[in-house]
Amino acid sequence: MAKAPVLTPRADDFPRWYQDLINKAELADNGPVRGTMVIRPYGYALWERMQEEMGARIKAAGAQNAYFPLFIPQSYLTREAEHVEGFAPELAVVTHGGGKELDEPVVVRPTSETIINESFSKWVQSYRDLPLLINQWANVVRWEMRPRVFLRTTEFLWQEGHTAHATYEDARDYAAHIHQAVYADFMVNVLGIDVVLGRKTPRERFAGAINTLTLEGMMGDGKALQLGTSHELGTNFAKAFNTRYLSKDGKQELVWQTSWGTSTRMVGGLIMSHGDDNGLRVPPRLAAVQVVVMAIKGDEAVVKVREIGDRLRAAGLRVEVDVRTDTPFGRRAVDWELKGVPVRVEVGPRDLEAGTAMLARRIPGGKEPVRIDTLAALLPGLLEEDQATLLRQSRERRESRTADVTTIAEAAEAASAGGWARIPWAVLGQEGEAKLAEQSVSVRCLLAADGSVPPADDSPGAVAIVGRAY
Amino acid sequence: MAKAPVLTPRADDFPRWYQDLINKAELADNGPVRGTMVIRPYGYALWERMQEEMGARIKAAGAQNAYFPLFIPQSYLTREAEHVEGFAPELAVVTHGGGKELDEPVVVRPTSETIINESFSKWVQSYRDLPLLINQWANVVRWEMRPRVFLRTTEFLWQEGHTAHATYEDARDYAAHIHQAVYADFMVNVLGIDVVLGRKTPRERFAGAINTLTLEGMMGDGKALQLGTSHELGTNFAKAFNTRYLSKDGKQELVWQTSWGTSTRMVGGLIMSHGDDNGLRVPPRLAAVQVVVMAIKGDEAVVKVREIGDRLRAAGLRVEVDVRTDTPFGRRAVDWELKGVPVRVEVGPRDLEAGTAMLARRIPGGKEPVRIDTLAALLPGLLEEDQATLLRQSRERRESRTADVTTIAEAAEAASAGGWARIPWAVLGQEGEAKLAEQSVSVRCLLAADGSVPPADDSPGAVAIVGRAY
Repeated sequence: MAKAPVLTPRADDFPRWYQDLINKAELADNGPVRGTMVIRPYGYALWERMQEEMGARIKAAGAQNAYFPLFIPQSYLTREAEHVEGFAPELAVVTHGGGKELDEPVVVRPTSETIINESFSKWVQSYRDLPLLINQWANVVRWEMRPRVFLRTTEFLWQEGHTAHATYEDARDYAAHIHQAVYADFMVNVLGIDVVLGRKTPRERFAGAINTLTLEGMMGDGKALQLGTSHELGTNFAKAFNTRYLSKDGKQELVWQTSWGTSTRMVGGLIMSHGDDNGLRVPPRLAAVQVVVMAIKGDEAVVKVREIGDRLRAAGLRVEVDVRTDTPFGRRAVDWELKGVPVRVEVGPRDLEAGTAMLARRIPGGKEPVRIDTLAALLPGLLEEDQATLLRQSRERRESRTADVTTIAEAAEAASAGGWARIPWAVLGQEGEAKLAEQSVSVRCLLAADGSVPPADDSPGAVAIVGRAY
Repeated sequence: MAKAPVLTPRADDFPRWYQDLINKAELADNGPVRGTMVIRPYGYALWERMQEEMGARIKAAGAQNAYFPLFIPQSYLTREAEHVEGFAPELAVVTHGGGKELDEPVVVRPTSETIINESFSKWVQSYRDLPLLINQWANVVRWEMRPRVFLRTTEFLWQEGHTAHATYEDARDYAAHIHQAVYADFMVNVLGIDVVLGRKTPRERFAGAINTLTLEGMMGDGKALQLGTSHELGTNFAKAFNTRYLSKDGKQELVWQTSWGTSTRMVGGLIMSHGDDNGLRVPPRLAAVQVVVMAIKGDEAVVKVREIGDRLRAAGLRVEVDVRTDTPFGRRAVDWELKGVPVRVEVGPRDLEAGTAMLARRIPGGKEPVRIDTLAALLPGLLEEDQATLLRQSRERRESRTADVTTIAEAAEAASAGGWARIPWAVLGQEGEAKLAEQSVSVRCLLAADGSVPPADDSPGAVAIVGRAY
């Protein structure tokens, strides 16, 4: 089957390819208010799978879900100086409610540190109440000047964790635990993206944090995407909201806090990491649909694919059955390829007699006949192979497109050429960082000499990872 | 153990009891912006269980989840005349974004018919695209003048279903299917509330609908709570947004639509249906925590309750283990009672020797010793008994507090006395309905003579259910 060029090739125009893919795979549309998005069922199912996988890890880390209001009194944001400075330019402000002008305008939450601290300051009384570990799944709003679906949208969906601890050490360790055991574990083992775990420079830190840990993925065009962050907030918000606890020694002490978030931006990262010129490729462990069983034509094939679907579901696979035989088969096959479903099982009248089906694999590519009665035993192993392939490709891309350099000019050059540079932080420094920023190149994160997360901004031997970013 | 009066008794002051319970059971707090609420972890876990149970039923009804923007251009709402009239007084309006005044103000969604129709008008092209069955879990905002936590809040969480069909009949049947197979099934069999399923009068209909089906529950004070609605929208929004499809005959036809919603208000209904003077009573099928296994004191008891917890979890129960032995046992027991956990298993040093535990049941009340090794076999049956008890009590209340009357004065009297009245719709009529409204009494719904949902506003023999309502 000769393929029509359904998408702009990545090599021709990566941003256009990205937008084409989102439209054609029916992931999302632009909303009517600039910068907003409509997440379509297939795109939303990917997000729901992310929620499921992340949710289980967040729960295992001991955090409980709760829900805080969308509307925050404007005055709350101003209580923490760096925080308001960071968010003021992006706020959406409600000035009218119930047909009247409001006495005090309210802002639509850009993030919930302030309103959550208002609650924490009431809930935390004694050391017995600590650690307090809360997570929220919610929508947030940051007015975007240059919106791009999933990557930078005025409204997006996310989870935001907020915790309070008795000591600096406990807060620091918890932020690191989320970074590693929740975020990295999900991104590497489910999303299949070989993220780099590092520390943000003071320039790139979250507004109000004393330390920001980040996870950076290299996309198909060599640019970086920040896929999640975990912040140590120190006592900054605790001071602003007077969040204190009675210690075992009977003293009133400020709590130490963390916050951490990941968002629908991960859907963008999924697309730009694993997509190819034929569409999306969804890692099997994430996929809402791991296998689609297609009836090519004929009522018997329809009956058979329903039967196969049930059998594969019983084997624990996530399966969709496609019996739309009034739509041309080729069009449906292209559609499932665009949507990146890892495995297609195609059943036509001739296959029925032979007891076989065509097995088409999206990730390695190719098609071959298989005996229908072997599918349930065969597929789980193939899907795990595909999962490993995507992660390996992600790692190989990052490794082959990261250059070790020793000068700022070389670092800028590597970034311009569509890749990352590794440069000693002692060579670059905050001045070098500012210089790179003029060319839209940023320090994605700092790594310790052994590749781990550096314990301090000025850890000796630290290396900066430098690149362009979304 | 003599009990301190932890809550205002219901008989003294029902609204105060409701608020006390919400505070003491740690379900929710008021948010800083008037009418908003903070849903605390235990309250949010109830909502998550509702989402889980409802979500499975919505999926079984064929609807897919998606997500539409929070912000709607103000002009969209005005396109359907009745709809905007219904919602205009309650809108929150964003006038500033990104530090600038907006060219066109945007409203925060009070419901999503308009913005979803904007998408539907693009997605629906041919009869092959129908029925289009979409559900969204989201927050919505309606500015509330007299807020009350969970019942009427400026922001609340809900699901809203939106569907498009080729024919009137198909839309009508789908709205009825949701009413029955999703909403009633959940409310009766999981929430344990013996809801009445009926049809709204034209006066009480959703703004923009041609028919509204409702589920009404009687609360502990005899007032009604509308727990969910399913609307036939006819072609009202299809006309306003020009949502048309190419029929098999090659003609452009308007789609027929439905919308349907349930919200965090159900948490309020749960409290007011099943709560008693000692706190909440959560139906076991809903409960996020069905069983709490408590260590009274001592390290051995802590080890033992963890072991029991694991065994009960393995038996498929939702279990929490309470090993906070540094907090007085009595206080913890009162706390779990307030939270309405159906079963407490209490293990102290003496029980360990005997191989027994105290089993305290929240719903029938009472405590008795049981052999620890029988718990896993015993509890599922007890929980099902408790589930049935709550539903029976809900039904008995409704039956005993509903009066058959033949005059408008009697109907008003029954409502004032804290109950409902059943009155022939031919006797009451729209004029009588308006008269009752002056006394804050409303027609909750119309029933057909045989108790089913009447097919039309003027179905002969229809009966009106009348009462005060939240």
